[in-house]
Amino acid sequence: MLGGRIEGDASVKVNNFGPLESAGEGCLSFLANQKYTHLVYESKASAILVSESFQAEQPVAASLIRVKDPYESLAILLSMAASMRPQPSGIDPNTYIAEGVERPEGLYVGAFAYIGKGVKIGKNVKIYPQAYVGDGCEIGDDTIIRAGVKIYEGCVIGKRCILHSGVVIGADGFGFAPTKEGYDKIPQLGNVVLEDDVEIGANTTVDCATFGSTVVGKGTKLDNLIQVAHNVNIGRNNVFAAQSGIAGSTHIGDWNRVGGQVGFAGHIKVGSNNEIGAQSGIPNNVGDNRRLIGYPATDVREFARNVVYIKRLKELFKK
Amino acid sequence: MLGGRIEGDASVKVNNFGPLESAGEGCLSFLANQKYTHLVYESKASAILVSESFQAEQPVAASLIRVKDPYESLAILLSMAASMRPQPSGIDPNTYIAEGVERPEGLYVGAFAYIGKGVKIGKNVKIYPQAYVGDGCEIGDDTIIRAGVKIYEGCVIGKRCILHSGVVIGADGFGFAPTKEGYDKIPQLGNVVLEDDVEIGANTTVDCATFGSTVVGKGTKLDNLIQVAHNVNIGRNNVFAAQSGIAGSTHIGDWNRVGGQVGFAGHIKVGSNNEIGAQSGIPNNVGDNRRLIGYPATDVREFARNVVYIKRLKELFKK
Amino acid sequence: MLGGRIEGDASVKVNNFGPLESAGEGCLSFLANQKYTHLVYESKASAILVSESFQAEQPVAASLIRVKDPYESLAILLSMAASMRPQPSGIDPNTYIAEGVERPEGLYVGAFAYIGKGVKIGKNVKIYPQAYVGDGCEIGDDTIIRAGVKIYEGCVIGKRCILHSGVVIGADGFGFAPTKEGYDKIPQLGNVVLEDDVEIGANTTVDCATFGSTVVGKGTKLDNLIQVAHNVNIGRNNVFAAQSGIAGSTHIGDWNRVGGQVGFAGHIKVGSNNEIGAQSGIPNNVGDNRRLIGYPATDVREFARNVVYIKRLKELFKK
Repeated sequence: MLGGRIEGDASVKVNNFGPLESAGEGCLSFLANQKYTHLVYESKASAILVSESFQAEQPVAASLIRVKDPYESLAILLSMAASMRPQPSGIDPNTYIAEGVERPEGLYVGAFAYIGKGVKIGKNVKIYPQAYVGDGCEIGDDTIIRAGVKIYEGCVIGKRCILHSGVVIGADGFGFAPTKEGYDKIPQLGNVVLEDDVEIGANTTVDCATFGSTVVGKGTKLDNLIQVAHNVNIGRNNVFAAQSGIAGSTHIGDWNRVGGQVGFAGHIKVGSNNEIGAQSGIPNNVGDNRRLIGYPATDVREFARNVVYIKRLKELFKK
Repeated sequence: MLGGRIEGDASVKVNNFGPLESAGEGCLSFLANQKYTHLVYESKASAILVSESFQAEQPVAASLIRVKDPYESLAILLSMAASMRPQPSGIDPNTYIAEGVERPEGLYVGAFAYIGKGVKIGKNVKIYPQAYVGDGCEIGDDTIIRAGVKIYEGCVIGKRCILHSGVVIGADGFGFAPTKEGYDKIPQLGNVVLEDDVEIGANTTVDCATFGSTVVGKGTKLDNLIQVAHNVNIGRNNVFAAQSGIAGSTHIGDWNRVGGQVGFAGHIKVGSNNEIGAQSGIPNNVGDNRRLIGYPATDVREFARNVVYIKRLKELFKK
Repeated sequence: MLGGRIEGDASVKVNNFGPLESAGEGCLSFLANQKYTHLVYESKASAILVSESFQAEQPVAASLIRVKDPYESLAILLSMAASMRPQPSGIDPNTYIAEGVERPEGLYVGAFAYIGKGVKIGKNVKIYPQAYVGDGCEIGDDTIIRAGVKIYEGCVIGKRCILHSGVVIGADGFGFAPTKEGYDKIPQLGNVVLEDDVEIGANTTVDCATFGSTVVGKGTKLDNLIQVAHNVNIGRNNVFAAQSGIAGSTHIGDWNRVGGQVGFAGHIKVGSNNEIGAQSGIPNNVGDNRRLIGYPATDVREFARNVVYIKRLKELFKK
């Protein structure tokens, strides 16, 4: 199934997953990071997924399964286990579904969920209890909206998206015009578009555009508690770790990997395939293929060098 | 209506808004920031709001509307468009409204909303689905409580406030007394007071005071995912960008402009009309009219200078 | 009741709490921090809790109550006042409670709450309106689940826990395997275990483990808007201030005190009894009894020294 090659007892049976250090008999474990190689020799797992190139330097008790990419193989097996879990289905009688909303096959709507006027829902969509889908929204096939998600009017959610509890999609962008007496609200009339295969972590917020759309591109994954401001445009296949924030109108390319608690200034352009370290501040445009960290962010090596220099300032001042 | 002066074809018709770079025929656009002046010459917008002092250095295809403040004028037009949107009204039969709560004219209460004992509600209040208003709260006229907002017992919300989805008002402040065995909870018996014209962004939290009130002053606007701790007092007409946090008992004056992911220490006093850059840390009292940035925050120019010096440490150490 | 000693008028009556600076007649106040001693002489409070060793250097109008620990005594009195507040009880008819779920004595379930299949609930549990408890969860005795909390399937919540509004427990950990076309989701099949006496602040998120459990230990208190990633293990009696984040698989010991907006890298080990300053970044393992601050975090004194050195770089470069 995994296209792997077994070393050791090929008849061993496993019925659970576990990390190398705590896995017991009957557990399948994996080695994806060389750093943890020593745990392979101590592990009580019954079988371990390793890479094809893995060379054991000590005896290993477990059966080894050699695969191209142990983490990917693990994902396949976990997906199998996940697919065996019971799926919720049916429409709870105690929901609000506006008149005229079609109910395609495979639809689940949990208790106390709200689905507004003119909402279009694809096949096999799961809308968990207490979720809110505002008037005129569109939800693509196979998308999962977990309990308590809130989606404002007119937003468009692609296919195979997952929105976790507490996510807020389409709340007003933060736009105000100062006057002598205070701030006048700039109404936010646009929407949010999440393309296909987007996953949004718990309590993350994506604001609607002032006009037009705030966009999260195909395959991009946002972790928990992230802020995406109005008119931001994020490309494809980015991963953002928790608590990062992107200020208004910033454009971000594809395949970027962003650490936790990073902040992007507004109105900047970030290219593709960058790796940005945790807690960085990105004040200006960024090109492609950079490895950045710091506040303001600089090249990773320069940052590391400067950290050392700052530690040594004492001696410099003494001189 | 805007008190503007038209240059070019005064009979042009527009039916939508759009940013300079993507606006098409029939779109009204605007130039509020000199940085984007070059886009005016390329834009396909039918009409563009510009400032009275704007001087075209190339031919412009669009009709120009000269106004005092293009952003303010845009706000007026967006408000007009917003006011034409249908407003929710009526009380859904599937709500919980405690006995004795009065229902003034213009009240909207959406499905699965909860309104506790003794709640006082002003005129034209909109309470969206799945919102929670605890016992004894007060909600002023024309205030909007979006889907899923949670307001704990006894909080007071002013007039014309907007609370976005996921906002939590009045949860317990973080107060514990250490003992040998662990931490004893200090009960938090106070409340939160939001004065008039306050807007609170999605998933922002404002904790109740230990006793007395945590206060957010008239006209102050908080973006998404902000933390306001117990006993904080924020003055009038401040704007805080997303993910900022204010620790307990800190007092903040009026008209401050605070960037994203800024942190304020507890028990400090911050004056008025300060501008605080994104991701700054404010450990101590701040006066008035300062421009600060950094961790710990310093004067903006000093910060910029030090960033340059740190970049040049390598040469210094070589010497 | 407090084991205190009264100085001044022992017959004075109080009916409210108030901070030294704003307390009026009939108010009980307290002095817990020497920094505010001057307020004792100006305060209009009727009675003030002070430490046994407090020596008045000016006349004090209020009656003094000398106690071992004024803050702890305040906590006792606030707890008394809190316990007199009416407690919600009963099961609202408009809830979803799966068949077969037992309803022990003292249970409160508010309107529009959802309790899934196989959930086990202890005695005196309070589940507020619009909360969601997924299939197979366990909730220990005397635990309070505030309005709108979301708990995913299979999570275990201990005794005497408090979960504030907007908390999300057990959402999927952030795990993806890159492929040529995008990211494959690594299903997250584990759960979250909150041990006894844990309090979780508003809108904080604790993700489920990939397999096994994400654990928050007995007596640990998390403030608002905190992120706890998958497979994290937090020990006992820690306090984390708001907006901190802990990346995946990190282990944290006991009795740590963590400031706001701190970030912990993934896969590290942090010992016990550390004090970590606000906005710090912790990239590597930390031992015990350290006082750290900064990005990357260093010893508190070293950090303070380096801040001064950086301020003086100008003179160094001039030389």
